[in-house]
Amino acid sequence: MRSAQLIGLISILLLATASNAQQPAAPMMGFAPDRAAEQREREAEFDAKLSAENLRGWMRRLSARPHPVGSFYGHENAQYMAALFREWGYSVRVEEYEVLFPTPKTRLLEMTAPERFAPRLAEPPLPEDSTSGQIDEQLPGYHAYSIDGDVTGEVVYVNYGVPMDYEELERRGISVEGKIALARYGGSWRGIKPKVAAERGAIGCIIYSDPRDDGYFQGDVYPKGAYRMEHGIQRGSVADMPLYPGDPLTPGIGATSDAERLPIAEAPTLTKIPVMPISYADALPILRALEGPVAPESWRGALPITYHLGPGPAIVHLKVEFSWDIVTAFNVIARTEGSERPEQWIVRGNHHDAWVNGAADPISGMVALMEEARAVGELARAGWRPKRTIVYCAWDAEEPGLLGSTEWVERHAAELGDKAAVYINTDGSGRGFLNAGGSHTLEAFINEVARDVRDPQVGGSVFERARARDLVNAAPAEREKIRARRDNPIAALGSGSDYTPFLQHLGIASLNLGFGGESGGGSYHSAYDSFDHYTRFGDPDFQYGVALAQVCGRATMRLADADALPFEFAALAETIGGYVEEVEKLADDMRRETEQTNRLIAEGAFVKAADPTQAGKAPAIRAPVPHLNFAPLENALERLRRAAKDYQAAAERRSGAESSMGVEVRSALDAMLYKTERALTREEGLPVRPWFKHYIYAPGFYTGYGVKTLPAVREAIEQREWSAIDANVQKTAQAICSASVGNGIFGRRG
Amino acid sequence: MRSAQLIGLISILLLATASNAQQPAAPMMGFAPDRAAEQREREAEFDAKLSAENLRGWMRRLSARPHPVGSFYGHENAQYMAALFREWGYSVRVEEYEVLFPTPKTRLLEMTAPERFAPRLAEPPLPEDSTSGQIDEQLPGYHAYSIDGDVTGEVVYVNYGVPMDYEELERRGISVEGKIALARYGGSWRGIKPKVAAERGAIGCIIYSDPRDDGYFQGDVYPKGAYRMEHGIQRGSVADMPLYPGDPLTPGIGATSDAERLPIAEAPTLTKIPVMPISYADALPILRALEGPVAPESWRGALPITYHLGPGPAIVHLKVEFSWDIVTAFNVIARTEGSERPEQWIVRGNHHDAWVNGAADPISGMVALMEEARAVGELARAGWRPKRTIVYCAWDAEEPGLLGSTEWVERHAAELGDKAAVYINTDGSGRGFLNAGGSHTLEAFINEVARDVRDPQVGGSVFERARARDLVNAAPAEREKIRARRDNPIAALGSGSDYTPFLQHLGIASLNLGFGGESGGGSYHSAYDSFDHYTRFGDPDFQYGVALAQVCGRATMRLADADALPFEFAALAETIGGYVEEVEKLADDMRRETEQTNRLIAEGAFVKAADPTQAGKAPAIRAPVPHLNFAPLENALERLRRAAKDYQAAAERRSGAESSMGVEVRSALDAMLYKTERALTREEGLPVRPWFKHYIYAPGFYTGYGVKTLPAVREAIEQREWSAIDANVQKTAQAICSASVGNGIFGRRG
Repeated sequence: MRSAQLIGLISILLLATASNAQQPAAPMMGFAPDRAAEQREREAEFDAKLSAENLRGWMRRLSARPHPVGSFYGHENAQYMAALFREWGYSVRVEEYEVLFPTPKTRLLEMTAPERFAPRLAEPPLPEDSTSGQIDEQLPGYHAYSIDGDVTGEVVYVNYGVPMDYEELERRGISVEGKIALARYGGSWRGIKPKVAAERGAIGCIIYSDPRDDGYFQGDVYPKGAYRMEHGIQRGSVADMPLYPGDPLTPGIGATSDAERLPIAEAPTLTKIPVMPISYADALPILRALEGPVAPESWRGALPITYHLGPGPAIVHLKVEFSWDIVTAFNVIARTEGSERPEQWIVRGNHHDAWVNGAADPISGMVALMEEARAVGELARAGWRPKRTIVYCAWDAEEPGLLGSTEWVERHAAELGDKAAVYINTDGSGRGFLNAGGSHTLEAFINEVARDVRDPQVGGSVFERARARDLVNAAPAEREKIRARRDNPIAALGSGSDYTPFLQHLGIASLNLGFGGESGGGSYHSAYDSFDHYTRFGDPDFQYGVALAQVCGRATMRLADADALPFEFAALAETIGGYVEEVEKLADDMRRETEQTNRLIAEGAFVKAADPTQAGKAPAIRAPVPHLNFAPLENALERLRRAAKDYQAAAERRSGAESSMGVEVRSALDAMLYKTERALTREEGLPVRPWFKHYIYAPGFYTGYGVKTLPAVREAIEQREWSAIDANVQKTAQAICSASVGNGIFGRRG
Repeated sequence: MRSAQLIGLISILLLATASNAQQPAAPMMGFAPDRAAEQREREAEFDAKLSAENLRGWMRRLSARPHPVGSFYGHENAQYMAALFREWGYSVRVEEYEVLFPTPKTRLLEMTAPERFAPRLAEPPLPEDSTSGQIDEQLPGYHAYSIDGDVTGEVVYVNYGVPMDYEELERRGISVEGKIALARYGGSWRGIKPKVAAERGAIGCIIYSDPRDDGYFQGDVYPKGAYRMEHGIQRGSVADMPLYPGDPLTPGIGATSDAERLPIAEAPTLTKIPVMPISYADALPILRALEGPVAPESWRGALPITYHLGPGPAIVHLKVEFSWDIVTAFNVIARTEGSERPEQWIVRGNHHDAWVNGAADPISGMVALMEEARAVGELARAGWRPKRTIVYCAWDAEEPGLLGSTEWVERHAAELGDKAAVYINTDGSGRGFLNAGGSHTLEAFINEVARDVRDPQVGGSVFERARARDLVNAAPAEREKIRARRDNPIAALGSGSDYTPFLQHLGIASLNLGFGGESGGGSYHSAYDSFDHYTRFGDPDFQYGVALAQVCGRATMRLADADALPFEFAALAETIGGYVEEVEKLADDMRRETEQTNRLIAEGAFVKAADPTQAGKAPAIRAPVPHLNFAPLENALERLRRAAKDYQAAAERRSGAESSMGVEVRSALDAMLYKTERALTREEGLPVRPWFKHYIYAPGFYTGYGVKTLPAVREAIEQREWSAIDANVQKTAQAICSASVGNGIFGRRG
């Protein structure tokens, strides 16, 4: 059985609920009313156990020294956490994986024309930041999985370096062929920039943090304020993560010591050209030296110069060499066995490795998970045993590309595919509003949780605060739509944290949770992401850290102990309906735009509208956008809507029905519920990238972290691959269908 | 008779056209076919006479030295032009007005805290700019009609300094009461900034050019490129021009030597607080010293700092004193008498005074007018005598507030009200696209002219080029609307050049014409607006200067010699219809926004959505927006639409009908046509500002140059003066009605 079969679910519920039709509606999803009351009492106990001082102390300890994967202190941290989890009563394993993790041997960048300039390439220690001077243990500014390279060439400023930017350059007659692309951070995940630059023929790529997006334009810079100071450098991975995340040498399998590995030269996710990140102080002289056309207005940053595109006369020499080491990643896996349905797992994770000291990213989320686990452990020792198994995970090697979680998921794929009901992820978290993303089958559930957690600054629930923000910020015409919706929408997940292997590789329903919006700053992946920075500008009192433990603790405990898993399908159907509308509109808009542009080209309008003294050419005629057959999607959606509605009606009458079923039936019912998410995947995966199997959510092939929903359909349209559309629509429609109609153990309805 | 009475016009045309129904449509508006052919031949002759070298030579001469009103060289220029007009066969008068024109005695600005800083307040001479060193004759950076003052206070950054910006400050708990407002140029006419600052209690105002809007963000700065360099200062008038333009001491009457004058202390258009313009190099240390909340994102400019709002700790001392002199303005008025209808005048003007050397503003437009007048003069000497009188005007004292034109119009109001058929204005002009604004009764006419002038760079007509630009830049959904319209829309006129007294004080149908869009730069009102700058970055070959002479020459000659004046009313009705929709939508949007905001306030949503660590307060409850009665406007519009349609039908059949009428009837018909514009005015003027009499177009009371259409209605809505709305709707509706239905000499229709 592969799919979740809502129809089958409905049958069993209709049978089971007949005798319970008089009971009042349950006040907590998945719980009978009496058990819900009990659960709320437990949650009050749980809240009372949470201590902000624990979070503060652990953050101080875990961020005291740099701790990337493979480092001495990273291993120390893993052992420290493992010991704590044991102390709290968990059964703990430290799972080890052997992963490729290059670190720099040579980092050379110099401008050789029109004048010489040697960038600093380093973040100065600051007296106001007590860990910023740990130079010996810091990884300097570099990009993991850049290839080795030694290139010299003219510079072209490529804005964010996404495909659209190169189209704009092309219209101005500028190519990066044989040049070095200088891109600013933002607009896409960083790994997209060297990928696209290489596709366009560039020989090297430099990525800098423009103060417009990440520096003084946003706010006062460190140490006066929270934002990136002039020498701050954003480290990061540039592997081709949208192809597959994890260890580049072991796609699809766990990177155990005996795993079969690709030769480094054949690893497809390494960049094709050398890449290096720099600060805006280092970028300024290079950008200032560029000539050629003035950059389009939206490309201009906040440096005090006129932004030009080049190419040249700035010429830079970029040389990078790496130690291509295999290092050990340490995942800490702590488990407490379920009492009744131990073969159903609620997995809860956060990574522990950091680029440098990583107080915000990831320790702020890690310490909330730890406090949650500690309190859950105390409840368990006091006698509470949830029905399902809870697994707490502290992942290593997330920063270079979700390695710890991915290798674990790949290694345990068969077991997880069968047993993992839900994965709940956190990562760096701050102060402000609850941000929730994830599977829309869990939208109603996580909203219910958010209604039960109090905002520590303002009062009211964290649900209310997020809704108030959405209402205040919305355009007037949107506000009624927001009010009409019972729940706050949760965001679709692209990538950028450890939920990806769970959700997109295995089809495990996932949530990604965090607080933010009032703790802006520019410490991301720099040496200034420190305890000092976080306790001044992040969440100084750790009150939102505690709130995050309250949200995630509730979610974990309710999922672990519910009579029936609190999945719901109306929001899924509604949300997919919105995506279908979007892709239809995307095709229609492209059709109109293409027709109109072709007509304008034919009329010579671009020539007439252009300044003849400026270099540039009119766009080229493009093939018309055909009318596409979206009917399979519409039909699949209609089925899903009906099934969701029927399930809802059945579920509303099922209160207490659980108890009239045997454990085996209840377990099977749960499995059908959580395997609905599996039904949305296809074993063959997405076109071009079989590792990604989810047909509703994927990181964009050209956006990276940014999600593409209905990716097979949407990306084929965006990339004008008309011949692929029909097949991709069919496959996506089949995935949606298989979530609503299956042929498993309970058979068809009626 | 006060109104134009389209209905009356229709009657006479229907009578006259009966016998001419078989003739083909005329190929030129207002001309019988045979005369149209003749006119086109004349225009070809006219084109052949135009010489770019004349424009270049005159620009060199007129911009050789600074020539503001009251200067030696300004007077020299007036005499030089007068002599040329005489040489070209015109009857010339130099009309003199005695006007208030303050120039600075003391300009002191210093920052006294948190550290001392003495701004430079001067534009350095540049070796690349041969006139930039004429320091002795230059007016330094200052604002005309600032009052004298000596103030010291904390600085508040107020963005553009428009009312909306103060609402934003208020929400952050910041007041300018007793402070000095630091505003950037842009977002409104400069005179609005000290006006609003004073209304809010500020004691002084500084206006600087931010490089985001006017400097290196836009392009390379002078002398490398065309844009404002760090010390460039924008001079300008800060009189309360939306109250009335012209000499502050003689509102409504010509400032002749014997005119009755207000005491300076009672002149209502002087500022209430001292004001001074500065460069961005001078603003930077002050802005950098500000603390307090970070400015909202849209307020931040391109200086390399975090923009804060203050107040303080920056404290500045601002002291300005002026010589409050009465100086003589010299208007050059050159006339050639009409042969058949000499009592009908086509007036064509451009100003000649400049803040400094003024090569672009105003000489680029002035020399195009001169070349046009020279060629028209030659045609006249070769025997062509147009039916109507042509008056060429070179205005003085436009820069301090349209003084030359306004005093002339006020002095000759009675005669102009009777005789002036059309006013055609130009001012600084550049390279690129034809920009046309004006009375929509002339929209079809000026489009016809634009179809007959060839673009000098790209070929095709200047009409086609402007349309191509509009199509290329439009959103896809807007393109079909553009294509569906035969003519390019002309812009409604606010203020900012000498058409204002003609159009908005007397109701004379006006056009404002110029080229631009490819000659961007930052020389405006600086010492670098020079021959050197203009011939590098403006219109180096004066080919668009010649094109401007072709457009304006055609317009002037056709208007002067047409059988019937080429007015048309369908575009007027359509355009006013658009304005009516806009004000209805404005009220509806405000009603919804007010309702929603009040509800959000009541729910506490603003408190929940705000960061409690940031100062700020929720907006206050506002009175609900009542439902307004727009029916009078709709009814008036419906009448205008019908009348315009009937007139159109009659006009299409009238070809040749002119010749069957006597000259007196033809003259009366013309007068009815051009007095349609008078019908759109009301003698009492607009609420609060009786000088402005046009009920369709006015400069905004809080935007300055920016137009407000249907101003009595629109501004009452914007300012939430609900009790004034009904009366203002009525008056506006009456004005629209009186343009379509009159009770004049031809009586009512039917």
